[in-house]
Amino acid sequence: MVQATDLPRNEDGIASALGILKQQFGDRFQTGDSIREQHGHTTTWIRNQPPDGVVFPRSTDEVADVIKVCATHKVPLIPFGVGTSLEGHVNAPAGGISMDLGQMNEILAVYPEDLNCVVQPGVTREQLNTYLRDQGLFFPIDPGANATIGGMTATRASGTNAVRYGTMKDNVIALEVVMANGDIIKTAQRAKKSSAGYDLTRLMVGSEGTLGVITKVTLRLQGIPEAMSSARCSFETVDAACQAVMATIQFGVPVARMELLDTASVEAVNAYSKLDLPVSPLLLLEFHGSEASVAEQSATFGEIAEDAGGTGFEWTTNAEERNRLWQARHDYYWATLQISPGKTAIATDVCVPISRLAECVARNNEMVEELGLTGMIVGHVGDGNFHTTLLVDMEDQDEIARADTFVGRLNELAISMDGTCTGEHGIGQGKRPYLTQELGASTRYMAAIKAAFDPDNILNPGKVLPD
Amino acid sequence: MVQATDLPRNEDGIASALGILKQQFGDRFQTGDSIREQHGHTTTWIRNQPPDGVVFPRSTDEVADVIKVCATHKVPLIPFGVGTSLEGHVNAPAGGISMDLGQMNEILAVYPEDLNCVVQPGVTREQLNTYLRDQGLFFPIDPGANATIGGMTATRASGTNAVRYGTMKDNVIALEVVMANGDIIKTAQRAKKSSAGYDLTRLMVGSEGTLGVITKVTLRLQGIPEAMSSARCSFETVDAACQAVMATIQFGVPVARMELLDTASVEAVNAYSKLDLPVSPLLLLEFHGSEASVAEQSATFGEIAEDAGGTGFEWTTNAEERNRLWQARHDYYWATLQISPGKTAIATDVCVPISRLAECVARNNEMVEELGLTGMIVGHVGDGNFHTTLLVDMEDQDEIARADTFVGRLNELAISMDGTCTGEHGIGQGKRPYLTQELGASTRYMAAIKAAFDPDNILNPGKVLPD
Repeated sequence: MVQATDLPRNEDGIASALGILKQQFGDRFQTGDSIREQHGHTTTWIRNQPPDGVVFPRSTDEVADVIKVCATHKVPLIPFGVGTSLEGHVNAPAGGISMDLGQMNEILAVYPEDLNCVVQPGVTREQLNTYLRDQGLFFPIDPGANATIGGMTATRASGTNAVRYGTMKDNVIALEVVMANGDIIKTAQRAKKSSAGYDLTRLMVGSEGTLGVITKVTLRLQGIPEAMSSARCSFETVDAACQAVMATIQFGVPVARMELLDTASVEAVNAYSKLDLPVSPLLLLEFHGSEASVAEQSATFGEIAEDAGGTGFEWTTNAEERNRLWQARHDYYWATLQISPGKTAIATDVCVPISRLAECVARNNEMVEELGLTGMIVGHVGDGNFHTTLLVDMEDQDEIARADTFVGRLNELAISMDGTCTGEHGIGQGKRPYLTQELGASTRYMAAIKAAFDPDNILNPGKVLPD
Repeated sequence: MVQATDLPRNEDGIASALGILKQQFGDRFQTGDSIREQHGHTTTWIRNQPPDGVVFPRSTDEVADVIKVCATHKVPLIPFGVGTSLEGHVNAPAGGISMDLGQMNEILAVYPEDLNCVVQPGVTREQLNTYLRDQGLFFPIDPGANATIGGMTATRASGTNAVRYGTMKDNVIALEVVMANGDIIKTAQRAKKSSAGYDLTRLMVGSEGTLGVITKVTLRLQGIPEAMSSARCSFETVDAACQAVMATIQFGVPVARMELLDTASVEAVNAYSKLDLPVSPLLLLEFHGSEASVAEQSATFGEIAEDAGGTGFEWTTNAEERNRLWQARHDYYWATLQISPGKTAIATDVCVPISRLAECVARNNEMVEELGLTGMIVGHVGDGNFHTTLLVDMEDQDEIARADTFVGRLNELAISMDGTCTGEHGIGQGKRPYLTQELGASTRYMAAIKAAFDPDNILNPGKVLPD
């Protein structure tokens, strides 16, 4: 893959850092092959570029200590959560040290009255929600994978219910960050809003470990809704489903999730999850609110869907049925893998203004066909965000090349529609070529920030910024 | 005022820039005393520091032309909307050119299907909402004043309904910005969300004209709710009112506005707006949604308020009554001025975690009394944000000094409660001393961004960043 070019290694510096970290961290510094490979590994088709060692800090001070070692010896430092990112974010193209934050997994404080909490970066989404449940609270951002809060923050993650609750940028209140020289800063206080100075919080959210290592995250929380209902509705065409999505958003229905599966995706889900969903484009929805409100929202959506030609509309507040439906959606990745055993599922994502969504999906499907690929889509369509999954034989260079061509064309298409080359997966290594295409001269200012914050380029080099 | 220190002037550069701009802009470059004073003026107690000239560009290219002149001659350039900012944001402590963006006031595009629009920076909030009304859309951010969208973006404004709709940071999708060297950049595409690179949009939101001049703003819009209701409820104490606020937020009532007036504020509003609100702490609320939803929200709040000892709870969907109540809230500033004719109303703002709000307000009131001042509070309490208005005789140096002491103590108090020295007014000149106190080493990274983007410090010098 062109995206995973090796970068020059500072062999002397790396050797020095390895020695020092071994001495300082003992068993919490590992250099075995499999652990290194696992830490360069991401759920991606981008080839593995393992780091030279993996360190497991347990405190902000230890993070700062490691960074100072890396700064002194000019050695790359790559922050690592659980490695569920998709665009080569945790690869080590110039070698260096992977910093696994998994042992910094304490929930430091929950403030129920303020609807917020402070956690260490290694806390996972599911761990946090399990912890919060008894207090009637939850953290809504759900990218599918059981990612860490630190990783979700660093990649500006979102997912199925961003349509209602926003993305990580909307749900992080403040951060503690260790900078490239070891400075420990806080980006904001715990107040719900602030106009005090430049928004370093949002600058760090989505910076993919290239500007600093996140060591504490203050998150907004939500009260668990009194009631939840889920609904599904089939459509003859993707276009009709998109019309229903647009009308729902315009009508102001505060839908909590609204997912589109195309016909191929429905087939995959039916087969994997033993469901009998009608084999045509499908919308899956979830509504949160009071009992009366979710009933009203469901009914309103039902009318909108009917106007758009939807059929088989059903809704339920039954938790078991709801969970079964959403479990099927969450198992989507595994379902796609069953279609062509032995092939690898490559997930890419774009996001366009919702008015362009139907057209973008239609053109997407044409491009898949033109290139002789097997692909299907699923999407957080309330946000105009969808994922194309391609099934690729990683032994077949020609198929890989065609998949690469497809990803490029899809990105260009989204950009031409005033959309973005990534709605939620991030840039990492894989999408660097498209960032300049999308934002032009802005990338020079991103590079200026990077140079100001990390002049020796030790933090996650080779990511986000174009060459 | 210490906050409005004069800075060294580059007399030669200023003289050159004045000559060039006069030639290039003719009547659209003004140097008369009154227009200069008006452009250094803000609704503030900070003394006036007028610019040397005021230029009125009509296009992004003209903005870039002016900036290039200022860059060449190292002359300060201060972007100006309508001058309703409160912390000396548009003063010219080192002289230079005020850039009045009022003639760039076109609504460039509205995308009803996407619920967004693109406007020039000089469009005012009321102008935009008047334009949108026929399409069933509105832009929710309401800082009270009829500010420009550019100014609201630059100061990260919010206001009464931020509790539901967020602040400017949540409602700006993308920006076009002219940078200090004349580069024209776009910070994002029009897609609802993106993970493409560093969040320059949010970096510019709240940068108060120190990092670039905003020339286009893409805004999220909302559908006008099917129904709105307003409610009011009185409480014996501010503490009881705050308890009701916390319970309402925790219960997940999606309240659209929730304003607290203390007893002194109620008296002022009664006198000015000819109302007979009970003379005790008061909550004013607004609910948006379907008919059924606003009824349910109002009823839920009513129960919560009763539990907290609230009395005189009333709610209505009658538009006339609703407008009368909210007009009174909007006229608050004028109402306070009536209390002590001849005195100046000084508005300051802090924001704390909502669990600390009652305590912060109580201590605020003690401090007002301790310092022998006349003051009252009003607040966007759903966000933990409140304003203290002090009535000060600007001829009385001792009273001014005590007011200054008060502002400092209130900021320190809020910061000690994990709050911020400004929830929505911004730093400007007035709050620079408190930014470091609040965020410590972070301010060095803000300064690094400033130095990287504007190495000659021509964009709004003497603002935001501490010396």
